[in-house]
Amino acid sequence: MSLLVVGSVAFDAIETPFGKTDKIVGGAGTYVSLSASNFADDISLVSVVGGDFPKPFLEDMNKRGINTEGLEIKEDEKSFFWSGKYHTDMNTRDTLDTQLNVLEHFEPKVPESQASPDFLMLGNLAPNLQYDVIKQMTKRPKLIAMDTMNFWMDIALDDLKKTIAEVDILIINDEETRLLTGEYSLVKGAQKILTMGPKFLVIKKGEHGALLFNSSNDVFFAPALPLEDVFDPTGAGDTFAGGFMGYIARTNDISFDNMKRAIIHGSAMASFCVEKFGTEKLLTLTDKEIQDRIQEFVSLVQFDIH
Amino acid sequence: MSLLVVGSVAFDAIETPFGKTDKIVGGAGTYVSLSASNFADDISLVSVVGGDFPKPFLEDMNKRGINTEGLEIKEDEKSFFWSGKYHTDMNTRDTLDTQLNVLEHFEPKVPESQASPDFLMLGNLAPNLQYDVIKQMTKRPKLIAMDTMNFWMDIALDDLKKTIAEVDILIINDEETRLLTGEYSLVKGAQKILTMGPKFLVIKKGEHGALLFNSSNDVFFAPALPLEDVFDPTGAGDTFAGGFMGYIARTNDISFDNMKRAIIHGSAMASFCVEKFGTEKLLTLTDKEIQDRIQEFVSLVQFDIH
Repeated sequence: MSLLVVGSVAFDAIETPFGKTDKIVGGAGTYVSLSASNFADDISLVSVVGGDFPKPFLEDMNKRGINTEGLEIKEDEKSFFWSGKYHTDMNTRDTLDTQLNVLEHFEPKVPESQASPDFLMLGNLAPNLQYDVIKQMTKRPKLIAMDTMNFWMDIALDDLKKTIAEVDILIINDEETRLLTGEYSLVKGAQKILTMGPKFLVIKKGEHGALLFNSSNDVFFAPALPLEDVFDPTGAGDTFAGGFMGYIARTNDISFDNMKRAIIHGSAMASFCVEKFGTEKLLTLTDKEIQDRIQEFVSLVQFDIH
Repeated sequence: MSLLVVGSVAFDAIETPFGKTDKIVGGAGTYVSLSASNFADDISLVSVVGGDFPKPFLEDMNKRGINTEGLEIKEDEKSFFWSGKYHTDMNTRDTLDTQLNVLEHFEPKVPESQASPDFLMLGNLAPNLQYDVIKQMTKRPKLIAMDTMNFWMDIALDDLKKTIAEVDILIINDEETRLLTGEYSLVKGAQKILTMGPKFLVIKKGEHGALLFNSSNDVFFAPALPLEDVFDPTGAGDTFAGGFMGYIARTNDISFDNMKRAIIHGSAMASFCVEKFGTEKLLTLTDKEIQDRIQEFVSLVQFDIH
């Protein structure tokens, strides 16, 4: 089944307790589509980059089955750039620099041939742009998923709520859940969000796993894999979302039981992502590595009560 | 099978965002043995209280099958008292007052009839006292479990290490694991602890669940139940340990697979504990409530990969 991904394709410069990078390729759209490409084979990416973006990276994406026809290249401008430094606990970070560049006047244009995808993943972007993308759909996707961040809750809450009302599943982290709902309890927060439009909610808790809620009060919890080292958490949340939606697109099944499997696949992909800087690990993964990792999740939580 | 519990029986005064209590009964020994009494029927408690401790509470414990012959009552002294205030996140708290009282010169004396238990749970106490208890055993228990806290790592590290070397399973929280090992990664911390003597390690992560490691590199993760409200976290860790050891004592099985089940039982008991102040909820639980709660854990993490 087809999956349309909308999100930033950009440069990051990252510093962690384990080392630092120069400008490397990052961005929500990059992580989501690379992760999803391990499962789905009909992926399109709508985004924008500047003339400074390395063409070979886009060619690699194409080779992985990611259609970049809807990725605009503004040759005279520069790509979005973010620079950040992680603290020892890897759960908190300081932003050192943000240069919007091409993202400042970005207007996503979905190519006509891609405007009726089976599934749509809206990576973190200004909510009015996410809304515009939904309105460009010529047919309602079977599932629209959306990520967002604290920043938009602070400066564009009305736009954000309008967009959330249009999607089927919101995929955000615990801190964002608390800010969006004013509830410290994630269970209460989830109940509120499930009255705002979405029928499903995924709360990403980083090293503490992820929760899936639906509007019938079902709850599923998937752990994160206990790792010896988290090398670089950048992109882990997007990689999770990409694995989730890629698996949904491959299986074409949006039942709660299949969403559980999708979350395990997303968690497995995120566990790879954090093992190296940036997208490095995602670009070299084999199917066998992914299947072995999924088995690690199975044995991590498997028990029988008798 | 018989379970011997050693730990404080005391008074707490607790303040949470939901309210505050006057002096109520608390203490590691109290929570551990009350929790275990839902599973095991041959429990002995070694501890000490002052003349101010309510005799009816001890009689209630006896009615639940907890033998308090080894609980010394120092009529002229006062019971241990702790007072604390939790922050909004319920994961951090300030100690407002600590009065050692009877605990200051406590020397646990295990009655001869209780000195050869099948299972031994050493609740948090000065490590030299925990060590003394082990030495009072006339027969090696099948499993010795031990809890401890940051405080002893700061002021009695050598005693602590000597005691840890004697036990089979250490049950501590994530922060304590990091302090004891100097490793931020819990996986690396676990590897270190499993070279210090214990063959098993449980790391309690509060609202983020619990991890079980063994010295063959097996790992099991149990979530905490997502709750609408955590009313009072006091005693949750001890209640977890009590459920764990109570289940082990009932089933008389120390295989890794049975320890997984024991962790689920401990997690279920802890999820009840936090729903009310102090021991209140633990005193009214029915078997049916416990079994229903355990089914909630099953459905929370259950998935099938095909």
